Amino acid sequence: MQQQLLKVMNFTVSADGVAAGENQSLENPFGDERARNLLAWAGATASWPNRTAPGGTRGIDDYFTRDYSNNIGAEIMGRNKFGPQRGPWQDHDWLGWWGDEPPFHTPVFVMTHHPRPSFSLSDTTFHFVGGDPATVLAQAREAAQGKDVRLGGGVSTIRRFLDAGLVDTLHVAVAPKKLGTGLKLWESPDELLDRYHLEVVPSPSGITHHLFWRK
Amino acid sequence: MQQQLLKVMNFTVSADGVAAGENQSLENPFGDERARNLLAWAGATASWPNRTAPGGTRGIDDYFTRDYSNNIGAEIMGRNKFGPQRGPWQDHDWLGWWGDEPPFHTPVFVMTHHPRPSFSLSDTTFHFVGGDPATVLAQAREAAQGKDVRLGGGVSTIRRFLDAGLVDTLHVAVAPKKLGTGLKLWESPDELLDRYHLEVVPSPSGITHHLFWRK
Repeated sequence: MQQQLLKVMNFTVSADGVAAGENQSLENPFGDERARNLLAWAGATASWPNRTAPGGTRGIDDYFTRDYSNNIGAEIMGRNKFGPQRGPWQDHDWLGWWGDEPPFHTPVFVMTHHPRPSFSLSDTTFHFVGGDPATVLAQAREAAQGKDVRLGGGVSTIRRFLDAGLVDTLHVAVAPKKLGTGLKLWESPDELLDRYHLEVVPSPSGITHHLFWRK
Repeated sequence: MQQQLLKVMNFTVSADGVAAGENQSLENPFGDERARNLLAWAGATASWPNRTAPGGTRGIDDYFTRDYSNNIGAEIMGRNKFGPQRGPWQDHDWLGWWGDEPPFHTPVFVMTHHPRPSFSLSDTTFHFVGGDPATVLAQAREAAQGKDVRLGGGVSTIRRFLDAGLVDTLHVAVAPKKLGTGLKLWESPDELLDRYHLEVVPSPSGITHHLFWRK
Protein backbone atom coordinates (compact mmCIF):
# COMPACT_ATOMS: atom_id res chain seq x y z
CA MET A 1 0.00 0.00 0.00
CA GLN A 2 1.21 3.48 -0.88
CA GLN A 3 1.89 6.09 1.77
CA GLN A 4 -1.28 7.98 2.77
CA LEU A 5 -0.53 11.67 2.36
CA LEU A 6 -2.08 14.53 4.34
CA LYS A 7 -2.73 17.28 1.80
CA VAL A 8 -3.82 20.90 1.89
CA MET A 9 -5.55 21.52 -1.46
CA ASN A 10 -6.84 24.66 -3.19
CA PHE A 11 -6.47 26.72 -0.02
CA THR A 12 -6.71 30.35 -1.09
CA VAL A 13 -5.11 33.34 0.62
CA SER A 14 -4.58 36.99 -0.22
CA ALA A 15 -1.21 38.38 -1.31
CA ASP A 16 -0.55 39.12 2.36
CA GLY A 17 -1.55 35.65 3.57
CA VAL A 18 -5.11 36.23 4.82
CA ALA A 19 -7.43 33.28 4.17
CA ALA A 20 -10.36 33.58 1.78
CA GLY A 21 -13.60 32.99 3.66
CA GLU A 22 -12.46 35.29 6.45
CA ASN A 23 -15.36 36.66 8.52
CA GLN A 24 -17.59 33.81 7.45
CA SER A 25 -21.16 34.16 8.69
CA LEU A 26 -24.60 32.75 8.02
CA GLU A 27 -25.29 35.61 5.65
CA ASN A 28 -21.87 35.38 3.94
CA PRO A 29 -20.82 31.71 3.89
CA PHE A 30 -17.72 32.45 1.78
CA GLY A 31 -16.73 35.32 4.03
CA ASP A 32 -17.15 39.02 3.59
CA GLU A 33 -17.14 40.66 0.18
CA ARG A 34 -13.48 41.63 0.06
CA ALA A 35 -12.34 38.06 0.78
CA ARG A 36 -14.96 36.25 -1.27
CA ASN A 37 -13.58 37.54 -4.58
CA LEU A 38 -10.36 35.67 -3.88
CA LEU A 39 -12.09 32.41 -4.77
CA ALA A 40 -13.14 33.49 -8.26
CA TRP A 41 -10.21 31.62 -9.83
CA ALA A 42 -11.67 28.26 -8.75
CA GLY A 43 -15.26 29.09 -9.69
CA ALA A 44 -14.16 29.88 -13.25
CA THR A 45 -12.86 26.37 -13.94
CA ALA A 46 -14.70 23.49 -15.62
CA SER A 47 -14.05 21.13 -12.68
CA TRP A 48 -15.21 23.35 -9.81
CA PRO A 49 -17.25 20.91 -7.68
CA ASN A 50 -20.15 23.31 -7.26
CA ARG A 51 -20.40 24.14 -10.97
CA THR A 52 -23.91 23.77 -12.33
CA ALA A 53 -23.64 25.72 -15.62
CA PRO A 54 -21.73 24.13 -18.51
CA GLY A 55 -18.46 25.66 -19.70
CA GLY A 56 -15.54 26.82 -17.61
CA THR A 57 -11.83 26.99 -18.30
CA ARG A 58 -9.59 23.94 -18.73
CA GLY A 59 -6.21 25.60 -18.25
CA ILE A 60 -3.80 25.29 -15.34
CA ASP A 61 -6.31 26.37 -12.66
CA ASP A 62 -8.56 23.50 -13.72
CA TYR A 63 -5.83 20.96 -12.89
CA PHE A 64 -6.12 22.09 -9.28
CA THR A 65 -9.91 21.97 -8.99
CA ARG A 66 -9.89 18.65 -10.90
CA ASP A 67 -7.37 17.18 -8.47
CA TYR A 68 -9.51 18.05 -5.44
CA SER A 69 -11.09 14.59 -5.08
CA ASN A 70 -8.33 12.58 -6.78
CA ASN A 71 -7.43 9.66 -4.49
CA ILE A 72 -8.88 11.45 -1.43
CA GLY A 73 -10.57 9.16 1.10
CA ALA A 74 -11.36 11.57 3.98
CA GLU A 75 -11.24 15.24 4.99
CA ILE A 76 -10.28 16.86 8.26
CA MET A 77 -11.65 20.34 8.93
CA GLY A 78 -11.81 22.79 11.80
CA ARG A 79 -15.15 23.54 13.34
CA ASN A 80 -15.13 27.06 11.93
CA LYS A 81 -15.11 25.65 8.41
CA PHE A 82 -18.13 23.50 9.28
CA GLY A 83 -20.27 26.32 10.60
CA PRO A 84 -20.49 29.70 12.32
CA GLN A 85 -21.48 28.33 15.77
CA ARG A 86 -19.07 28.56 18.70
CA GLY A 87 -19.21 26.76 22.05
CA PRO A 88 -21.55 23.84 22.89
CA TRP A 89 -24.08 22.89 20.20
CA GLN A 90 -27.44 24.52 20.93
CA ASP A 91 -29.14 21.95 18.71
CA HIS A 92 -28.22 19.65 15.84
CA ASP A 93 -30.15 21.46 13.11
CA TRP A 94 -27.08 22.91 11.42
CA LEU A 95 -25.80 20.46 8.76
CA GLY A 96 -23.01 22.54 7.23
CA TRP A 97 -22.90 25.14 4.46
CA TRP A 98 -23.16 22.74 1.57
CA GLY A 99 -26.80 21.71 1.21
CA ASP A 100 -27.96 18.15 0.48
CA GLU A 101 -24.94 17.25 -1.70
CA PRO A 102 -21.74 18.31 0.05
CA PRO A 103 -18.72 18.31 -2.30
CA PHE A 104 -16.66 15.93 -0.14
CA HIS A 105 -18.13 12.47 -0.94
CA THR A 106 -16.08 10.90 1.88
CA PRO A 107 -16.05 10.82 5.67
CA VAL A 108 -15.32 14.30 7.08
CA PHE A 109 -13.79 14.73 10.54
CA VAL A 110 -14.81 18.02 12.17
CA MET A 111 -12.48 18.93 15.04
CA THR A 112 -14.38 20.18 18.08
CA HIS A 113 -14.31 19.84 21.85
CA HIS A 114 -18.12 19.66 21.84
CA PRO A 115 -19.55 16.17 21.17
CA ARG A 116 -22.24 15.64 18.56
CA PRO A 117 -23.56 12.51 16.78
CA SER A 118 -22.33 11.73 13.28
CA PHE A 119 -24.71 12.28 10.36
CA SER A 120 -24.72 11.71 6.60
CA LEU A 121 -25.78 13.87 3.67
CA SER A 122 -25.70 11.96 0.38
CA ASP A 123 -22.28 10.18 0.28
CA THR A 124 -20.64 12.50 2.85
CA THR A 125 -20.60 11.54 6.54
CA PHE A 126 -19.63 14.12 9.16
CA HIS A 127 -17.95 12.92 12.37
CA PHE A 128 -17.25 15.26 15.31
CA VAL A 129 -13.99 14.46 17.02
CA GLY A 130 -11.82 15.78 19.81
CA GLY A 131 -8.18 15.00 20.41
CA ASP A 132 -4.89 16.30 19.10
CA PRO A 133 -3.99 16.47 15.40
CA ALA A 134 -2.10 13.16 15.37
CA THR A 135 -5.08 11.32 16.89
CA VAL A 136 -7.55 12.84 14.45
CA LEU A 137 -5.25 12.09 11.52
CA ALA A 138 -5.02 8.43 12.59
CA GLN A 139 -8.83 8.22 12.58
CA ALA A 140 -9.07 9.90 9.18
CA ARG A 141 -6.41 7.62 7.67
CA GLU A 142 -8.27 4.56 8.90
CA ALA A 143 -11.50 5.87 7.36
CA ALA A 144 -9.73 6.75 4.09
CA GLN A 145 -8.97 3.06 3.45
CA GLY A 146 -5.59 3.55 1.88
CA LYS A 147 -6.35 6.81 0.11
CA ASP A 148 -4.97 10.25 0.99
CA VAL A 149 -6.51 12.66 3.52
CA ARG A 150 -7.37 16.28 2.69
CA LEU A 151 -6.81 18.94 5.35
CA GLY A 152 -9.59 21.40 4.60
CA GLY A 153 -8.71 24.35 6.85
CA GLY A 154 -9.19 26.96 8.10
CA VAL A 155 -5.98 28.72 8.93
CA SER A 156 -5.86 27.73 12.61
CA THR A 157 -6.36 24.06 11.80
CA ILE A 158 -3.69 24.07 9.09
CA ARG A 159 -1.22 25.78 11.41
CA ARG A 160 -1.85 23.22 14.17
CA PHE A 161 -1.10 20.34 11.78
CA LEU A 162 1.96 22.15 10.39
CA ASP A 163 3.26 22.70 13.93
CA ALA A 164 2.81 18.99 14.60
CA GLY A 165 4.80 18.12 11.47
CA LEU A 166 1.91 16.17 9.94
CA VAL A 167 1.32 17.89 6.59
CA ASP A 168 2.88 16.18 3.55
CA THR A 169 1.90 18.56 0.73
CA LEU A 170 0.27 21.99 0.46
CA HIS A 171 -1.26 23.71 -2.51
CA VAL A 172 -1.92 27.32 -1.57
CA ALA A 173 -3.44 29.63 -4.19
CA VAL A 174 -2.24 33.19 -3.60
CA ALA A 175 -4.48 35.92 -4.99
CA PRO A 176 -2.99 39.19 -6.24
CA LYS A 177 -5.02 41.32 -3.81
CA LYS A 178 -3.89 42.36 -0.31
CA LEU A 179 -6.45 42.35 2.51
CA GLY A 180 -4.40 43.95 5.28
CA THR A 181 -6.21 42.52 8.29
CA GLY A 182 -7.42 39.05 9.13
CA LEU A 183 -6.19 35.66 10.29
CA LYS A 184 -3.02 34.85 8.36
CA LEU A 185 -1.72 31.51 7.12
CA TRP A 186 1.74 33.07 6.99
CA GLU A 187 3.62 36.33 6.87
CA SER A 188 5.54 34.84 3.93
CA PRO A 189 5.62 31.40 2.24
CA ASP A 190 9.34 31.39 2.97
CA GLU A 191 8.48 30.38 6.54
CA LEU A 192 8.01 26.81 5.30
CA LEU A 193 11.22 26.52 3.29
CA ASP A 194 13.20 24.87 6.06
CA ARG A 195 10.94 21.83 5.83
CA TYR A 196 9.41 21.92 2.34
CA HIS A 197 10.34 22.20 -1.31
CA LEU A 198 8.45 25.04 -2.98
CA GLU A 199 7.44 25.62 -6.59
CA VAL A 200 5.69 28.87 -7.49
CA VAL A 201 3.51 28.65 -10.60
CA PRO A 202 1.80 31.77 -11.95
CA SER A 203 -1.56 31.30 -13.67
CA PRO A 204 -3.05 33.54 -16.36
CA SER A 205 -5.96 34.07 -13.93
CA GLY A 206 -3.67 36.17 -11.73
CA ILE A 207 -3.41 33.46 -9.07
CA THR A 208 0.06 32.30 -8.05
CA HIS A 209 -0.06 28.61 -7.14
CA HIS A 210 2.34 27.65 -4.34
CA LEU A 211 3.18 23.94 -4.23
CA PHE A 212 4.98 22.59 -1.17
CA TRP A 213 6.15 19.06 -0.49
CA ARG A 214 8.29 17.64 2.25
CA LYS A 215 12.08 17.70 1.98
CA MET B 1 -24.12 12.14 -17.39
CA GLN B 2 -21.25 14.54 -18.03
CA GLN B 3 -19.78 15.01 -21.49
CA GLN B 4 -17.11 12.39 -22.28
CA LEU B 5 -14.00 14.28 -23.35
CA LEU B 6 -11.32 13.07 -25.75
CA LYS B 7 -8.02 14.14 -24.22
CA VAL B 8 -4.38 14.20 -25.26
CA MET B 9 -2.39 13.97 -22.01
CA ASN B 10 1.31 14.30 -21.18
CA PHE B 11 2.27 14.17 -24.85
CA THR B 12 5.87 15.38 -25.04
CA VAL B 13 7.54 17.09 -27.98
CA SER B 14 10.82 18.93 -28.58
CA ALA B 15 11.03 22.71 -28.83
CA ASP B 16 10.59 22.27 -32.59
CA GLY B 17 7.57 19.97 -32.30
CA VAL B 18 9.15 16.52 -32.78
CA ALA B 19 7.54 13.80 -30.65
CA ALA B 20 9.47 12.08 -27.90
CA GLY B 21 9.75 8.37 -28.63
CA GLU B 22 10.75 9.12 -32.22
CA ASN B 23 12.60 6.20 -33.88
CA GLN B 24 11.14 3.75 -31.41
CA SER B 25 12.51 0.24 -31.82
CA LEU B 26 12.69 -3.04 -29.93
CA GLU B 27 16.07 -2.00 -28.54
CA ASN B 28 14.96 1.56 -27.71
CA PRO B 29 11.30 1.46 -26.69
CA PHE B 30 11.28 5.15 -25.75
CA GLY B 31 12.97 6.11 -29.01
CA ASP B 32 16.54 6.98 -29.76
CA GLU B 33 18.78 8.62 -27.21
CA ARG B 34 18.27 12.22 -28.31
CA ALA B 35 14.47 11.94 -28.03
CA ARG B 36 14.33 9.77 -24.92
CA ASN B 37 15.72 12.51 -22.68
CA LEU B 38 12.67 14.60 -23.44
CA LEU B 39 10.62 12.39 -21.12
CA ALA B 40 12.81 12.95 -18.07
CA TRP B 41 10.38 15.56 -16.68
CA ALA B 42 7.69 12.91 -16.20
CA GLY B 43 10.01 10.27 -14.79
CA ALA B 44 11.15 12.67 -12.06
CA THR B 45 7.65 13.04 -10.55
CA ALA B 46 6.18 11.12 -7.62
CA SER B 47 3.12 10.03 -9.65
CA TRP B 48 4.89 8.67 -12.75
CA PRO B 49 2.99 5.41 -13.40
CA ASN B 50 6.15 3.37 -13.91
CA ARG B 51 7.85 4.64 -10.75
CA THR B 52 9.16 1.86 -8.54
CA ALA B 53 11.56 3.78 -6.26
CA PRO B 54 10.10 6.02 -3.53
CA GLY B 55 10.50 9.77 -3.75
CA GLY B 56 9.94 12.03 -6.74
CA THR B 57 8.85 15.62 -7.04
CA ARG B 58 5.35 16.89 -6.12
CA GLY B 59 5.46 20.22 -7.93
CA ILE B 60 3.57 21.30 -11.03
CA ASP B 61 4.87 18.47 -13.26
CA ASP B 62 3.40 15.98 -10.80
CA TYR B 63 -0.10 17.39 -11.33
CA PHE B 64 0.18 16.24 -14.93
CA THR B 65 1.45 12.73 -14.27
CA ARG B 66 -1.09 12.42 -11.42
CA ASP B 67 -3.93 13.42 -13.73
CA TYR B 68 -3.04 10.74 -16.29
CA SER B 69 -5.62 8.20 -15.08
CA ASN B 70 -8.08 10.65 -13.49
CA ASN B 71 -11.58 9.82 -14.80
CA ILE B 72 -10.14 8.03 -17.86
CA GLY B 73 -12.13 4.99 -19.02
CA ALA B 74 -10.35 4.03 -22.26
CA GLU B 75 -7.35 4.87 -24.44
CA ILE B 76 -7.02 5.09 -28.21
CA MET B 77 -3.53 4.65 -29.67
CA GLY B 78 -1.96 4.25 -33.08
CA ARG B 79 -0.36 0.95 -33.96
CA ASN B 80 3.11 2.49 -33.84
CA LYS B 81 2.65 3.27 -30.16
CA PHE B 82 1.66 -0.35 -29.54
CA GLY B 83 4.71 -1.88 -31.18
CA PRO B 84 7.41 -1.68 -33.85
CA GLN B 85 5.76 -4.12 -36.30
CA ARG B 86 4.38 -2.90 -39.61
CA GLY B 87 2.03 -4.69 -42.04
CA PRO B 88 0.10 -7.92 -41.25
CA TRP B 89 0.83 -9.56 -37.87
CA GLN B 90 3.40 -12.33 -38.32
CA ASP B 91 2.27 -13.85 -35.02
CA HIS B 92 0.52 -12.73 -31.83
CA ASP B 93 3.52 -13.01 -29.52
CA TRP B 94 4.03 -9.25 -29.18
CA LEU B 95 1.97 -7.92 -26.24
CA GLY B 96 3.14 -4.30 -26.20
CA TRP B 97 6.07 -2.53 -24.57
CA TRP B 98 4.70 -2.48 -21.08
CA GLY B 99 5.24 -5.92 -19.54
CA ASP B 100 2.66 -7.74 -17.41
CA GLU B 101 1.22 -4.56 -15.83
CA PRO B 102 0.54 -1.97 -18.52
CA PRO B 103 -0.05 1.52 -17.09
CA PHE B 104 -3.48 1.94 -18.75
CA HIS B 105 -5.81 -0.13 -16.50
CA THR B 106 -8.66 0.30 -19.02
CA PRO B 107 -9.63 -0.96 -22.45
CA VAL B 108 -7.12 0.23 -25.09
CA PHE B 109 -8.12 0.55 -28.74
CA VAL B 110 -5.17 0.05 -31.10
CA MET B 111 -5.90 1.43 -34.58
CA THR B 112 -4.77 -0.94 -37.31
CA HIS B 113 -5.98 -2.26 -40.64
CA HIS B 114 -4.72 -5.71 -39.69
CA PRO B 115 -7.12 -7.79 -37.57
CA ARG B 116 -5.98 -9.45 -34.39
CA PRO B 117 -7.86 -10.96 -31.40
CA SER B 118 -8.21 -8.89 -28.22
CA PHE B 119 -6.13 -9.88 -25.21
CA SER B 120 -5.76 -8.78 -21.58
CA LEU B 121 -2.74 -8.11 -19.37
CA SER B 122 -3.72 -7.49 -15.75
CA ASP B 123 -6.57 -4.91 -15.88
CA THR B 124 -5.73 -3.64 -19.38
CA THR B 125 -7.47 -5.14 -22.44
CA PHE B 126 -6.13 -4.39 -25.92
CA HIS B 127 -8.58 -4.32 -28.83
CA PHE B 128 -7.45 -4.00 -32.46
CA VAL B 129 -9.81 -1.91 -34.51
CA GLY B 130 -10.08 -0.52 -38.03
CA GLY B 131 -12.31 2.31 -39.15
CA ASP B 132 -12.10 6.07 -39.16
CA PRO B 133 -11.42 8.19 -36.04
CA ALA B 134 -15.09 8.91 -35.34
CA THR B 135 -15.96 5.20 -35.42
CA VAL B 136 -13.09 4.25 -33.14
CA LEU B 137 -13.96 7.09 -30.75
CA ALA B 138 -17.56 5.86 -30.54
CA GLN B 139 -16.30 2.38 -29.58
CA ALA B 140 -13.92 3.81 -26.98
CA ARG B 141 -16.62 6.03 -25.46
CA GLU B 142 -18.95 3.07 -25.11
CA ALA B 143 -16.18 1.08 -23.40
CA ALA B 144 -15.30 4.02 -21.12
CA GLN B 145 -18.75 3.83 -19.47
CA GLY B 146 -19.23 7.54 -18.97
CA LYS B 147 -15.59 8.41 -18.30
CA ASP B 148 -13.26 10.36 -20.58
CA VAL B 149 -11.11 8.84 -23.34
CA ARG B 150 -7.35 9.42 -23.61
CA LEU B 151 -5.81 9.78 -27.06
CA GLY B 152 -2.37 8.26 -26.57
CA GLY B 153 -0.60 9.16 -29.82
CA GLY B 154 1.64 9.05 -31.71
CA VAL B 155 1.80 12.17 -33.81
CA SER B 156 0.01 10.74 -36.87
CA THR B 157 -2.89 9.49 -34.77
CA ILE B 158 -3.28 12.81 -32.92
CA ARG B 159 -3.22 14.72 -36.20
CA ARG B 160 -5.91 12.48 -37.70
CA PHE B 161 -8.22 13.12 -34.72
CA LEU B 162 -7.44 16.85 -34.80
CA ASP B 163 -8.25 16.99 -38.51
CA ALA B 164 -11.56 15.26 -37.77
CA GLY B 165 -12.37 17.85 -35.07
CA LEU B 166 -12.68 15.20 -32.35
CA VAL B 167 -10.12 16.33 -29.74
CA ASP B 168 -11.54 18.25 -26.74
CA THR B 169 -8.38 19.02 -24.74
CA LEU B 170 -4.64 18.65 -25.28
CA HIS B 171 -1.82 18.79 -22.78
CA VAL B 172 1.46 18.94 -24.71
CA ALA B 173 4.71 19.13 -22.74
CA VAL B 174 7.29 21.05 -24.76
CA ALA B 175 10.91 20.30 -23.89
CA PRO B 176 13.56 23.02 -24.19
CA LYS B 177 15.69 21.01 -26.66
CA LYS B 178 15.37 21.14 -30.46
CA LEU B 179 15.69 17.90 -32.42
CA GLY B 180 15.71 19.25 -35.97
CA THR B 181 14.42 16.19 -37.81
CA GLY B 182 11.55 13.82 -37.10
CA LEU B 183 7.79 13.55 -37.33
CA LYS B 184 6.30 16.79 -36.03
CA LEU B 185 3.09 17.40 -34.10
CA TRP B 186 3.21 21.00 -35.32
CA GLU B 187 5.45 23.68 -36.72
CA SER B 188 4.07 25.94 -33.99
CA PRO B 189 1.36 25.57 -31.31
CA ASP B 190 -0.24 28.66 -32.84
CA GLU B 191 -1.65 26.39 -35.55
CA LEU B 192 -4.37 25.34 -33.12
CA LEU B 193 -5.37 28.82 -31.95
CA ASP B 194 -8.27 29.15 -34.39
CA ARG B 195 -10.08 26.32 -32.61
CA TYR B 196 -8.60 26.16 -29.10
CA HIS B 197 -7.86 28.32 -26.09
CA LEU B 198 -4.20 28.02 -25.07
CA GLU B 199 -2.45 28.51 -21.76
CA VAL B 200 1.33 28.20 -21.62
CA VAL B 201 2.69 27.23 -18.20
CA PRO B 202 6.45 27.07 -17.60
CA SER B 203 7.71 24.50 -15.10
CA PRO B 204 10.91 24.73 -13.05
CA SER B 205 11.93 21.47 -14.78
CA GLY B 206 12.42 23.38 -18.03
CA ILE B 207 9.26 21.92 -19.59
CA THR B 208 6.67 24.34 -20.94
CA HIS B 209 3.20 22.86 -20.51
CA HIS B 210 0.77 23.78 -23.28
CA LEU B 211 -2.90 23.42 -22.33
CA PHE B 212 -5.51 23.59 -25.08
CA TRP B 213 -9.26 23.38 -24.78
CA ARG B 214 -11.99 23.95 -27.34
CA LYS B 215 -13.32 27.44 -28.00
